[in-house]
Amino acid sequence: MAGNTFGEAFKVTTWGESHGTAIGAVIDGCPPGLLIDQEDINREMARRRPGQGGASSPRKEPDRVEILSGIFTPQGEEMPRTTGTPISLAIFNKDAHSKSYDDLREIFRPGHGDKTYLAKYGIRDHRGGGRASARETAARVAAGAIAKQLLKRHGIEVCAYTLALGGVRIRTCDLSTILDNRFFCPDPVAARQMEARVSEVHAQGDTLGGIVEIRATCPEGLGEPVFDKLDASLAHALMSIGAVKGVEIGAGFAVADMLGSENNDAIGPGGFLGNNAGGMLAGISNGEEVVIRVAVKPIPSISREQKTVNLANEEVAIRVGGRHDISAIPRIIPVCEAMVRLTLADFLLRDMAVRRNMQAWI
Amino acid sequence: MAGNTFGEAFKVTTWGESHGTAIGAVIDGCPPGLLIDQEDINREMARRRPGQGGASSPRKEPDRVEILSGIFTPQGEEMPRTTGTPISLAIFNKDAHSKSYDDLREIFRPGHGDKTYLAKYGIRDHRGGGRASARETAARVAAGAIAKQLLKRHGIEVCAYTLALGGVRIRTCDLSTILDNRFFCPDPVAARQMEARVSEVHAQGDTLGGIVEIRATCPEGLGEPVFDKLDASLAHALMSIGAVKGVEIGAGFAVADMLGSENNDAIGPGGFLGNNAGGMLAGISNGEEVVIRVAVKPIPSISREQKTVNLANEEVAIRVGGRHDISAIPRIIPVCEAMVRLTLADFLLRDMAVRRNMQAWI
Amino acid sequence: MAGNTFGEAFKVTTWGESHGTAIGAVIDGCPPGLLIDQEDINREMARRRPGQGGASSPRKEPDRVEILSGIFTPQGEEMPRTTGTPISLAIFNKDAHSKSYDDLREIFRPGHGDKTYLAKYGIRDHRGGGRASARETAARVAAGAIAKQLLKRHGIEVCAYTLALGGVRIRTCDLSTILDNRFFCPDPVAARQMEARVSEVHAQGDTLGGIVEIRATCPEGLGEPVFDKLDASLAHALMSIGAVKGVEIGAGFAVADMLGSENNDAIGPGGFLGNNAGGMLAGISNGEEVVIRVAVKPIPSISREQKTVNLANEEVAIRVGGRHDISAIPRIIPVCEAMVRLTLADFLLRDMAVRRNMQAWI
Amino acid sequence: MAGNTFGEAFKVTTWGESHGTAIGAVIDGCPPGLLIDQEDINREMARRRPGQGGASSPRKEPDRVEILSGIFTPQGEEMPRTTGTPISLAIFNKDAHSKSYDDLREIFRPGHGDKTYLAKYGIRDHRGGGRASARETAARVAAGAIAKQLLKRHGIEVCAYTLALGGVRIRTCDLSTILDNRFFCPDPVAARQMEARVSEVHAQGDTLGGIVEIRATCPEGLGEPVFDKLDASLAHALMSIGAVKGVEIGAGFAVADMLGSENNDAIGPGGFLGNNAGGMLAGISNGEEVVIRVAVKPIPSISREQKTVNLANEEVAIRVGGRHDISAIPRIIPVCEAMVRLTLADFLLRDMAVRRNMQAWI
Repeated sequence: MAGNTFGEAFKVTTWGESHGTAIGAVIDGCPPGLLIDQEDINREMARRRPGQGGASSPRKEPDRVEILSGIFTPQGEEMPRTTGTPISLAIFNKDAHSKSYDDLREIFRPGHGDKTYLAKYGIRDHRGGGRASARETAARVAAGAIAKQLLKRHGIEVCAYTLALGGVRIRTCDLSTILDNRFFCPDPVAARQMEARVSEVHAQGDTLGGIVEIRATCPEGLGEPVFDKLDASLAHALMSIGAVKGVEIGAGFAVADMLGSENNDAIGPGGFLGNNAGGMLAGISNGEEVVIRVAVKPIPSISREQKTVNLANEEVAIRVGGRHDISAIPRIIPVCEAMVRLTLADFLLRDMAVRRNMQAWI
Repeated sequence: MAGNTFGEAFKVTTWGESHGTAIGAVIDGCPPGLLIDQEDINREMARRRPGQGGASSPRKEPDRVEILSGIFTPQGEEMPRTTGTPISLAIFNKDAHSKSYDDLREIFRPGHGDKTYLAKYGIRDHRGGGRASARETAARVAAGAIAKQLLKRHGIEVCAYTLALGGVRIRTCDLSTILDNRFFCPDPVAARQMEARVSEVHAQGDTLGGIVEIRATCPEGLGEPVFDKLDASLAHALMSIGAVKGVEIGAGFAVADMLGSENNDAIGPGGFLGNNAGGMLAGISNGEEVVIRVAVKPIPSISREQKTVNLANEEVAIRVGGRHDISAIPRIIPVCEAMVRLTLADFLLRDMAVRRNMQAWI
Repeated sequence: MAGNTFGEAFKVTTWGESHGTAIGAVIDGCPPGLLIDQEDINREMARRRPGQGGASSPRKEPDRVEILSGIFTPQGEEMPRTTGTPISLAIFNKDAHSKSYDDLREIFRPGHGDKTYLAKYGIRDHRGGGRASARETAARVAAGAIAKQLLKRHGIEVCAYTLALGGVRIRTCDLSTILDNRFFCPDPVAARQMEARVSEVHAQGDTLGGIVEIRATCPEGLGEPVFDKLDASLAHALMSIGAVKGVEIGAGFAVADMLGSENNDAIGPGGFLGNNAGGMLAGISNGEEVVIRVAVKPIPSISREQKTVNLANEEVAIRVGGRHDISAIPRIIPVCEAMVRLTLADFLLRDMAVRRNMQAWI
Repeated sequence: MAGNTFGEAFKVTTWGESHGTAIGAVIDGCPPGLLIDQEDINREMARRRPGQGGASSPRKEPDRVEILSGIFTPQGEEMPRTTGTPISLAIFNKDAHSKSYDDLREIFRPGHGDKTYLAKYGIRDHRGGGRASARETAARVAAGAIAKQLLKRHGIEVCAYTLALGGVRIRTCDLSTILDNRFFCPDPVAARQMEARVSEVHAQGDTLGGIVEIRATCPEGLGEPVFDKLDASLAHALMSIGAVKGVEIGAGFAVADMLGSENNDAIGPGGFLGNNAGGMLAGISNGEEVVIRVAVKPIPSISREQKTVNLANEEVAIRVGGRHDISAIPRIIPVCEAMVRLTLADFLLRDMAVRRNMQAWI
């Protein structure tokens, strides 16, 4: 009933609060025999780390992932492999100044979960947002790095990048350039405009929203209709990231203005002749590229004054100081990739029983 | 692993193919004692029925729901009540002309799941789309009508209506007028323009997309972070409807262009002073109205010629005739309501153990 | 949360009350392409049917299973195949005399669930025990007959028989004789003694308990430690049958008196040199025969007078008349087989993702 | 699909290998507000610790449980409370001599999961049995200690003790004496005989089996028919403990020899007049004491020579040395209690939605 687990076959449970002892994840269902490259996990973690530039907070989090179980180095090999048993991942919290949150104990920050967590649970770890902190997504990135190893073996790759930030949208899209700027933006000109926009808004004590696009190569046949359609589960996965307020697949909201004859992707002997569908039909991947976009809301922690109430329901003004990002972009990008990877890994395993059995009779 | 079940506490499993013997649903977890008003279920079914006007196909489906289990009329009462055991709902198919689908046995219709179902399962019930038919949603509406009874007891109401159809968007929004036109459109002027647009496109043998908005009253505290956030599960629920290609909550994709100071809903002693959040924060309902929009793609069955391939992967042309709708709107409206109801009923029950236990210590 | 579903990959949900419109099951997760032999399903149902002899009630239930979805006969084939979509099975109730249960509306029968169902749900379908009736197991047998088709393709066979009835235990065990008597008893001499015991107790208006043993061939590697060990899930499956009060695997309760050196099965190059383990070690099948025994309590409906209370909690005497069996044996035998089949089918599918993935690296 | 999670509402996932970095558990679904008494957790852990006497190995495991998340000490309180978020428990391994297992890398120990784990996963952490080690149950005891806090608030108590060990059965049963001997045996005379039997068998390098009985007070109404009956889930819970080969409820296997008139518990105005049912009818608790017995196999690690094979499938002889217990009793006793507590906590929460809703209409 509680909702801290994602996936059915490749099942991930995350735990931990922003300023507790540690955060982490347990993966149950990872197939045995996968090589685990600790360096690759660290690379993924580094991409989510704060302090990567002006749009992100200068706070340093080393975020070293410890693998507490589920791997074993066979005699004569150098790298550990998964054993098929649960993989426990932990990241111990270090750079956490709980004291600096003391003044938030009795006040509800607008745009945060302070009020709803207290309403639901009757008790609240107010330090840094507790469980509702974006810090929780570090555990998702760690788990996603394991899923990445599984997907790689099946030729599945996932890549996310920035489509819009603070009102600046890309006009060209060259994915080979996304590592050239800190926004993972595929339009170098737009990237420079985004930088300017970030500086401008930073000076105002405000924050920015944007749009992230995720693409994935994907074999035909993944997805479990009618409720666990590939699109439905991807929407679930991505909307479970705190800052995401919208998800669209392929043509997305643009379909509202299209005719059937425009929107339908014709089919040729070599495959589909378009990809308005975004890589899936009737909830099952069709072999084309999976294309998803998510709307990212501005970070709610702003240093401008806002109206709110305290525990006694008295009107108060608040300015949220501290080391906060100007936008969830770019740090949300590896989180989006992780959630798409966890979804695809889950569907890959769920699909295997079906296909393997099919081979027996065809 | 297979994905035909929705919900954890109020759990619905649907079954059935468009042209099989019947379609239906089993609800496991419905609390006992709810009065079941068969007439109300029929009213919900009638709203989803085709033949309601030009935008919908003239095919008649009586769609009478039979309740095969899980209810009992206590001595001295007149209406049955739920017993806490599984509620089995069946709708027997009557007006199904399988023959008319014979020419689709060997061809993949663009925009449909024909190709992906065959890729996944290696076998395909081609008659009317089989399991991938929109007819499957009738079972969801039937189950949603039971959820409606549960929600009513807790003061939760759900209402969906048309925001855009075929490029026509509403400019005013008066929910008291949505029953005055067949599109459940809250702007009478736009509704007339939608009629005109439907006639125009119908004449061209083409189809139309649109946008549906769903609102729900909802008590504080529903939603199960971090993965089963209320928004995440609503996105899952709605994206699992075949025609839906995008879901947004509250301000949705508009957040991409907003500043934090614009997007944050300030809080006053009487509640939130805005609702960009769409009724939830950190995945938990905040007591404000839940607001969701979904993008609905044009019906893929068009009578204009399209390019596709047959089972032998040879290029062929296809015109999909038959009794098809011009748009999934308005028939998708009760389906959207049903999916939101199923989600809220599930979260209501999932929340109860938590709250009840809380009362013991506070 | 409600518990009417069994299995994770081969997932079965049963529904229905003894004297409602129908009972049935939905199977979600059955692989596509399996041939469905309706006659074989009927044969399984016939074995569970009452009226097979003195120990069973003379009530006739034709129990014809209707398959409402999930199968399709490909062009040019004669028998339907599963399509990978949910298989809906229904058995409509015919020979149900609700009136004869009117006098049980206000009284709790000892040994039945009358009192506990009312305590839990606050409402009770008293007719024939409602959902708690053994009739519910007919849906399990129907679902088990589908699982049987899947298992057959993987060389897995399940067989149950009577080890003891009314104090008579077998002294020889020749499985080739179990079809020669109506108790599926592998000792012809004991079978005759069981007949005599049944007649004797029938005359006294009393009922009998017994022990059923189930054996299954099973490939190595099924079972999902640590909680879903093969033994744990088999115990769950079998203990979920109303009449079962004990389950033991392999040597079972006899291990309490054994030394480690006696109980351990030594291993040789050709396999295990004993089977005290009953076919599984550490929760995973070891390739040896799976051996399970269950204790079956006497049918609680006896015509001898018993003390009980009514709804007003007043002391009353009760004699349960009607068409009742003397023992759950032999009708429980196909039910035990069905539950073991459902368990093994589930574990077979759960194991496939693991093994298939392994092949990629070994 | 992988099976390392137990429970639906009070959901526990364990992880960890005997000689890995750590073992642990994540509890998702524990209600908020429960006081967590770290001392009480330690007391439970101490009862499972080896080195408690001759029947147990002298190995010392401090087994200190660290709570990494899910608790918070509200201002002004002294003890932490649960927050409703996942509770992560970890026990770091200290006293683990992996080297001593080097000679087991290539050999399958009889009675252990060595062969089946390798067959299933294709890779095996051979050190101390890896995941299949009884050490995994320490994580269950830790999680069970949290469940104990929840149950205490609802007046539910669980107690386990030894009924038989090495062929010695109790003849009297005085539960007030179970803390007077190290076997938690309620018959002081039998306890002394058990001591003698343990010494005798220890000298022979052999091991012993036994029977444990568990009793629990339990309110009416827990259990979720038809598959998640209380008895079925308890059988699942207990049979998932490695050493358990049989489970029986109430009269258990004795029902095989009973008449219906003997086995049925008559009902009086003050409750049931017997408890052959062991506290549940039709899978729902009836308010009487829950009574369960489990058969515990002898520890398979014996120092007497046994026949087995190595990885090359060659016949070899093995003597398993090291610090092993003579019997799983008494260390299995807190594990049995933990599994029953986890089951009852789960059913308590699953039942709450039902009951709370009922109050609305009755």
